[in-house]
Amino acid sequence: MSGPGSAADRLRALGLTLPELGRDSNYVNHRAAGSAIHVSGQLPYRDGELLGRGIVGRDVDVPAARACARQAALNALAVAAAAVGDLDRVRIVQMLVFVASTPELGEQSLVADAASELLVQVLGEHGRHARTAIGVAGLPRNSPVEIQLVCTAGSAP
Amino acid sequence: MSGPGSAADRLRALGLTLPELGRDSNYVNHRAAGSAIHVSGQLPYRDGELLGRGIVGRDVDVPAARACARQAALNALAVAAAAVGDLDRVRIVQMLVFVASTPELGEQSLVADAASELLVQVLGEHGRHARTAIGVAGLPRNSPVEIQLVCTAGSAP
Amino acid sequence: MSGPGSAADRLRALGLTLPELGRDSNYVNHRAAGSAIHVSGQLPYRDGELLGRGIVGRDVDVPAARACARQAALNALAVAAAAVGDLDRVRIVQMLVFVASTPELGEQSLVADAASELLVQVLGEHGRHARTAIGVAGLPRNSPVEIQLVCTAGSAP
Repeated sequence: MSGPGSAADRLRALGLTLPELGRDSNYVNHRAAGSAIHVSGQLPYRDGELLGRGIVGRDVDVPAARACARQAALNALAVAAAAVGDLDRVRIVQMLVFVASTPELGEQSLVADAASELLVQVLGEHGRHARTAIGVAGLPRNSPVEIQLVCTAGSAP
Repeated sequence: MSGPGSAADRLRALGLTLPELGRDSNYVNHRAAGSAIHVSGQLPYRDGELLGRGIVGRDVDVPAARACARQAALNALAVAAAAVGDLDRVRIVQMLVFVASTPELGEQSLVADAASELLVQVLGEHGRHARTAIGVAGLPRNSPVEIQLVCTAGSAP
Repeated sequence: MSGPGSAADRLRALGLTLPELGRDSNYVNHRAAGSAIHVSGQLPYRDGELLGRGIVGRDVDVPAARACARQAALNALAVAAAAVGDLDRVRIVQMLVFVASTPELGEQSLVADAASELLVQVLGEHGRHARTAIGVAGLPRNSPVEIQLVCTAGSAP
């Protein structure tokens, strides 16, 4: 498990808050199929600004990309919490981490680890997930990272 | 909702028809896990021809890529309708939009919007979905766009 | 179906064995949501070594990439068998094949076919799946191929 207190306590101890959710006309933040909740791809926005822009390995270094991955994971977690209705009941099933990469980078797992770590710091064992990390040619608005989640709702703790 | 009439009516009003489905020996057009139906990645074929070839931002412009996205979404919808048995019962859950992109493009969401719009034009609220749009290095047969769906079957209207 | 004998028999007849599974601290080999088991992205490791490195179409040719796809699919099958508890009960639902590609390659389906063929050789009809093959900019540790599966557990044969 993940130490004492609620997931909200752990989030606070990390100095983090879940962001407000936006809306889009053609698609939605999440949609469920049976018990699986699919969260739309999230970019590393914080207070309305992308944390970085460009290609990792050329314009963005790995530490900066890790900060982006952490923020995108936080944003995905906010959608998951809203979908489930309670952060403590979020169970992460699968995470796809897209890293805008040069062909030579090879360090996509290191970038994705920052996102995985955040989920485990906040949710403990319930944050552990199946994961795929890949390097893509580019991302919307030249974001260096994009994160997609599948989660389920567990029973209250 | 999506205005009067059936999804087939709306498709006809758009001047569109669902294409015939092909077959492949090693994989299938769709497969279900519980209530979730996974549709194989669809390319923008129309009457046996790809609507475009190459990389968006270099060989293909955004309006042409949007036409490809719309066609690939139509093809995915044909598979979904065949899987569910009735176009009016298709509920889109998740769409992954792969856009073959230069590293600088940044407009993958604009391309993906054309696919999202088609699904909502045909299915109304049932066409709204969780979405992830990414830019990839290249696609099978040098297609500019590929689309993958997850859907479920709703009750008849 | 897939001829006489068990999936393990067919695996042996192909001269293959399922590899041992490793562990990672931040994520897991697989996670289930309802009946769907999500398998983490698998690289073409064999005996602790990647079968190749680099970009297909530049550093790695299509036959070598196909060998990588086959190995990555074998590794994914090992996770699926461990998750389900019995290789004969594995049902493949969806496979995502990521091929590190030059923009010009266009032969990602040919690479992915090697993975699809392995699943069908071992599991017969239960190995047939929805599939998406895409070309990505690069992959973790400069692997040429990465494979992600969704599977379910069927009843014993």
